[in-house]
Amino acid sequence: MELYQELSLQARDLRFQHLTSITARNNNIIIRMEALKAVVTPNSLLVLDFRGLGLERWLVLELAPQLNGDHGAMATHSLPFEFRALEAILQHRVNTLQARLNEVHPVILDILESLVDPKLLSADRSKLHILLQNSKNLSELETDIKVFKDSLLKILDEEEMIEELCVTKWTDPRVFEESSLGIDHAEEMELLLENYFMQAEELGNTTRELKGLIDDSESVIFINLDSHRNVMMRLNLQLTMGTFSLSLFGLMGVAFGMNLESTFEEDPKVFWLVTGFMFLGSGLIWRRLLSFLGRHLEPTVPPQIPTVWKRNQINSKGAEMKSGLR
Amino acid sequence: MELYQELSLQARDLRFQHLTSITARNNNIIIRMEALKAVVTPNSLLVLDFRGLGLERWLVLELAPQLNGDHGAMATHSLPFEFRALEAILQHRVNTLQARLNEVHPVILDILESLVDPKLLSADRSKLHILLQNSKNLSELETDIKVFKDSLLKILDEEEMIEELCVTKWTDPRVFEESSLGIDHAEEMELLLENYFMQAEELGNTTRELKGLIDDSESVIFINLDSHRNVMMRLNLQLTMGTFSLSLFGLMGVAFGMNLESTFEEDPKVFWLVTGFMFLGSGLIWRRLLSFLGRHLEPTVPPQIPTVWKRNQINSKGAEMKSGLR
Amino acid sequence: MELYQELSLQARDLRFQHLTSITARNNNIIIRMEALKAVVTPNSLLVLDFRGLGLERWLVLELAPQLNGDHGAMATHSLPFEFRALEAILQHRVNTLQARLNEVHPVILDILESLVDPKLLSADRSKLHILLQNSKNLSELETDIKVFKDSLLKILDEEEMIEELCVTKWTDPRVFEESSLGIDHAEEMELLLENYFMQAEELGNTTRELKGLIDDSESVIFINLDSHRNVMMRLNLQLTMGTFSLSLFGLMGVAFGMNLESTFEEDPKVFWLVTGFMFLGSGLIWRRLLSFLGRHLEPTVPPQIPTVWKRNQINSKGAEMKSGLR
Amino acid sequence: MELYQELSLQARDLRFQHLTSITARNNNIIIRMEALKAVVTPNSLLVLDFRGLGLERWLVLELAPQLNGDHGAMATHSLPFEFRALEAILQHRVNTLQARLNEVHPVILDILESLVDPKLLSADRSKLHILLQNSKNLSELETDIKVFKDSLLKILDEEEMIEELCVTKWTDPRVFEESSLGIDHAEEMELLLENYFMQAEELGNTTRELKGLIDDSESVIFINLDSHRNVMMRLNLQLTMGTFSLSLFGLMGVAFGMNLESTFEEDPKVFWLVTGFMFLGSGLIWRRLLSFLGRHLEPTVPPQIPTVWKRNQINSKGAEMKSGLR
Amino acid sequence: MELYQELSLQARDLRFQHLTSITARNNNIIIRMEALKAVVTPNSLLVLDFRGLGLERWLVLELAPQLNGDHGAMATHSLPFEFRALEAILQHRVNTLQARLNEVHPVILDILESLVDPKLLSADRSKLHILLQNSKNLSELETDIKVFKDSLLKILDEEEMIEELCVTKWTDPRVFEESSLGIDHAEEMELLLENYFMQAEELGNTTRELKGLIDDSESVIFINLDSHRNVMMRLNLQLTMGTFSLSLFGLMGVAFGMNLESTFEEDPKVFWLVTGFMFLGSGLIWRRLLSFLGRHLEPTVPPQIPTVWKRNQINSKGAEMKSGLR
Repeated sequence: MELYQELSLQARDLRFQHLTSITARNNNIIIRMEALKAVVTPNSLLVLDFRGLGLERWLVLELAPQLNGDHGAMATHSLPFEFRALEAILQHRVNTLQARLNEVHPVILDILESLVDPKLLSADRSKLHILLQNSKNLSELETDIKVFKDSLLKILDEEEMIEELCVTKWTDPRVFEESSLGIDHAEEMELLLENYFMQAEELGNTTRELKGLIDDSESVIFINLDSHRNVMMRLNLQLTMGTFSLSLFGLMGVAFGMNLESTFEEDPKVFWLVTGFMFLGSGLIWRRLLSFLGRHLEPTVPPQIPTVWKRNQINSKGAEMKSGLR
Repeated sequence: MELYQELSLQARDLRFQHLTSITARNNNIIIRMEALKAVVTPNSLLVLDFRGLGLERWLVLELAPQLNGDHGAMATHSLPFEFRALEAILQHRVNTLQARLNEVHPVILDILESLVDPKLLSADRSKLHILLQNSKNLSELETDIKVFKDSLLKILDEEEMIEELCVTKWTDPRVFEESSLGIDHAEEMELLLENYFMQAEELGNTTRELKGLIDDSESVIFINLDSHRNVMMRLNLQLTMGTFSLSLFGLMGVAFGMNLESTFEEDPKVFWLVTGFMFLGSGLIWRRLLSFLGRHLEPTVPPQIPTVWKRNQINSKGAEMKSGLR
Repeated sequence: MELYQELSLQARDLRFQHLTSITARNNNIIIRMEALKAVVTPNSLLVLDFRGLGLERWLVLELAPQLNGDHGAMATHSLPFEFRALEAILQHRVNTLQARLNEVHPVILDILESLVDPKLLSADRSKLHILLQNSKNLSELETDIKVFKDSLLKILDEEEMIEELCVTKWTDPRVFEESSLGIDHAEEMELLLENYFMQAEELGNTTRELKGLIDDSESVIFINLDSHRNVMMRLNLQLTMGTFSLSLFGLMGVAFGMNLESTFEEDPKVFWLVTGFMFLGSGLIWRRLLSFLGRHLEPTVPPQIPTVWKRNQINSKGAEMKSGLR
Repeated sequence: MELYQELSLQARDLRFQHLTSITARNNNIIIRMEALKAVVTPNSLLVLDFRGLGLERWLVLELAPQLNGDHGAMATHSLPFEFRALEAILQHRVNTLQARLNEVHPVILDILESLVDPKLLSADRSKLHILLQNSKNLSELETDIKVFKDSLLKILDEEEMIEELCVTKWTDPRVFEESSLGIDHAEEMELLLENYFMQAEELGNTTRELKGLIDDSESVIFINLDSHRNVMMRLNLQLTMGTFSLSLFGLMGVAFGMNLESTFEEDPKVFWLVTGFMFLGSGLIWRRLLSFLGRHLEPTVPPQIPTVWKRNQINSKGAEMKSGLR
Repeated sequence: MELYQELSLQARDLRFQHLTSITARNNNIIIRMEALKAVVTPNSLLVLDFRGLGLERWLVLELAPQLNGDHGAMATHSLPFEFRALEAILQHRVNTLQARLNEVHPVILDILESLVDPKLLSADRSKLHILLQNSKNLSELETDIKVFKDSLLKILDEEEMIEELCVTKWTDPRVFEESSLGIDHAEEMELLLENYFMQAEELGNTTRELKGLIDDSESVIFINLDSHRNVMMRLNLQLTMGTFSLSLFGLMGVAFGMNLESTFEEDPKVFWLVTGFMFLGSGLIWRRLLSFLGRHLEPTVPPQIPTVWKRNQINSKGAEMKSGLR
């Protein structure tokens, strides 16, 4: 309550309804970035409800120096306080998103690399489970990046809102004049927001590429599995052909094995004749079947097919394009 | 008819042609949200045709306190009546959409979780049926969320329409002045609508993620089924190899089983020789076939293949991006 | 030619180049909706080339009463003639599109329902043919709806064109003043066009949902077919295992069936011993193979896999979103 | 060089850098449509580098009459020269695109029709090759249509550029005044460009539908192939069952075929008993296996599954929508 | 530091935060194109940190002549220095992108061509690996082209930014007046940027087409593999039928081979009868099974199926469209 008074805000200004939002109210900037809720006044930064969120480390180790402008490389250290505060929070948000991507990225690459391994006959199914989990995380990350980008874009699209975010300009004319030597506050604010927008855009691009890679890899996995299956099926078919040949000529042996009189019983040559015929016949039939299979698997009219792509055409097109300019 | 007179509306204003619409006419707000048809006047809320729609509970238990502003946490309790009425209706709509999502969400997650179980050899087909039903519901929900968002966006895009919705401003100057201390009605209305727009957006995001999850899971199911099939096919092939070997050497036994004279009949060693040869030969041939299969399933040139993704590059890119700012 | 004179139009105004277009020329509205070509003047409706198009029924039974304003529920019966004429034509177009959707919709649902039937081992291929035909019709319908929406949107985007469509306003000031008591013609025209735009939008939504349903059903059909195949393959594998076992031990029988001396010939117990060994051995080997198969189809590390989706998280997120407002 | 002087253009104006572009420079229109490069002056049309491009026929037979306005049905014959020239070129471009579509369209339909033939066990792979080629051509055509549309849209979006294209207006006031009786040149130019934009749009729609048809057909082909495979697999499984049964009971025969004493040798009934048992037993086991297969392929809980789609709901929705207007 | 002074820039102007950016600051243009960082002043071009990036060759051999305007065909050689510098850098960037496309393009076409070869029973899996790698590179290239296009579009969308890029205009009025005879600097700058935007667009189109080709080829590969499998499965089934028939009638032989008395032993005709019956019976049963298979694979109701696509309709539609204009 006192807080409201002090900041001359109203209760509904601090409702933090949306997971990600940046708004200016009465020369305060009210920010929510998922777990992090903060109010930026012209000379202080209030972080609300920070307990139990793992933010303590960041608050102590990183935020303080950034706000003091100690962080040498900081781009905004000569600008008023609200710039430093806003930058610290946006940086924190981008870092969080980047950290989530860094967590998911190598895991997905590792799993995909092991799944597309052409030596594998079957996909390791526990890895598929982990892939599914990570690709779900990736979708959520994509949504969060999109929401973050949208909330920045909403401000960037309205000049007015950018102006409102430069709170020092309206509250502390002295500091304003001092700091604004040759610098337009609104323009600096736009650059600041745009910078983080583009960082989020790059994160989004990486996420999208990763999703595309998962899709492409899945196609390759399918082709791999299908290829393995076809190879095995051909082997199986070749053996089935062999078994069939053996059965066919084995039938002859079975016939002679019957306890029925065939009149050949006493002729010693007949044994060798029939046995030889059985083995040779099996072999010949098998060979014929195999060569039949070989012919069958080839397409009916292969040689007349022209090549699908005439590369020359494309190269010349590119060349024409390049030379067109000079 | 009396109603028309009283509200100074015309018949065609209450046609409720579209399933979702919010329009202002003669200082009344006419709203339709699927089944719910309502007219908001500066000091009353008329709900039309509410019978048989399951709206009674909501009308009695929730709507009344909200309109009275009793609902403590209500953001609009200090604002004119039309804000409270509009908020109650939009909240009801969002709650309905959320309830439909809450109904569909856990069912889909449960089914997907059981379908991607890598232990399953075949997908439970009754579960697929339920999944299909729920994914149809999800599509319908997605359309409804989109329609709701579009009808809000149509108003948010035109300043004029927002102004028209603030009916108290035009009808009751006294209440208007009283309530508008430091508050711009149009701006409050915009915030109100924007709030529900963003809630619908979040619902839409969840729906989209869920659809993505269904797609990803289906890919995993396919890879699972294919993997199982490949494993079974290899086993089948190994056994076919065994059967072939046994047939081949069995043929020898069949040959000797023929009632033909082979001159070996009386030699006792020949029995063991031939029997041993049959079994050993089968075993050896089988082993050769198995090792041939093992070699056959490996790709032709595996070791020279470089890894697809150089992780370093990506990490350094990310690092560069982060460090770029400081 | 006389027609041109009468309407003070030029030949090129009546070229009807595009399949769907609405344009205003010299206080006439020239409309083409696929087969239907019409010119609306301030007090008459000319339908051109209507023969042989199946439009006669509509012209006689429906158009006349609508133009007379007899059609009680007509929203525009108190408005000038061009409104009634335009509404009749747009309504006819939407009805045609709706009729096409109504024709295709139940057929597709019926076919999909019979195709996703989990009892089916193979898809009925004549039904697939019909499905393909209907999904082609659906695509064409989608294009036509899009074209219709675009032609309305083109007018709705330009205030000027809406004004031009209110031909009575410019030609008959008396009727205009009479009819425009409290009514803005341009606004009415916008409402009229918007109404049909939204009807087309709803048709488009249904079409899109139907396309999504076809896609989802196809995935389910594929999973169904794959599952059936896996189940059959397992059965096949189990039987192949049995056949292998029988062959293996049958070889023993074949060995003893050879006309070679084995010294066991006279011992009566040996027959039962060997026979028993053959059958028992086959059975045992088969059982081992089956249990091996059972183990082989299970994944390597199943118990440690965490569940993919933590439902709590999602519910709490939803809850947070809902409660955020109050 | 002289050309430049004459047209008061500079070298860089005639660089024709992009494959498709329309620009106005110093009261000349410079056009490039892929191979066709032309400059339109207020009273002449220069076609550059037309040799070897197959344009001669068009130049002689079609272009001349069109420019002279002889072509009776020409919409622009009463308008200044640049309209006729521009129309002739744009018409030529659209005709070229249409011709390419006409070439690809029937081929794709023919191939798809023969590929989705449910009688086929396997797809004719040479046809697949041709399909791939044509679908590549279709993609290139789609890009070209898009580029053509974009170049028209770029002009249509800027009023200024349309004005600049009406070169007669600026160079020849006399002709301008004469021809512009009741006609606004800029408006005519907009209509002209819009006309060709819509023609390209219709080409684009057909292309998109064709791509969708290819996708749908591929799904049907896959379902067809999968169905065939399942049917064959069931037959295979049924025969494997038969072979298994025969092997099982054949083992009995093999046992009695051994040269071992079984004490049944002399009993004549035993032969018939065992033989009958072998055949009958095989048959019975096979029948049991088949009925087991029949049960196995049915889902576990089929009757309780509700229908996925309640058609009533949809119909009523449609009905509601239609009736909503009246 | 001196550099900053000299250029009157501040440290933060040279942070080069984003991988691709073009900005104007204090009459200097600051450009970053991935590795290449440069500052363009009205009369010099500073390339920063160019070491180790492979830029040396370009700097020495290409950049110098371009800046001197020696490069005859250069479009901008009569324009101020910043045009030449900007063009050289943008051209370098487009060339780099083009080179990357040229590297990936033929490799992908080659691999696809060899993968869709209908003669192949299984996809060469090492080629799949290379395809995956290249399609990943293609995605990255696509992103880079998009980023380049976006950075140009951002400038093209704001007139002001284009003006700022014409630095000579603001710093050197004399040169400006001299060079601007009949030339508007801002317009030239717009043409320059637009030119490279369209070149990037064409690269983007080629990339998109290539991605589509990969997708289409994958479908064809899948249909190929499936077709092969079906053909092999039919052959397998036919042989299984043969083996079954042989087993069935072989059982008869086995029966007569038993050491049991069948009373036929002495009849010499019986041997030939039974043997003939075995072979003939096998053959007949096999033939019946094969013809059953033939019937089984045909659909139930094939002749009544109408053709899916009525070509006439489409042709007439196209014809109508074409003729519509004349």
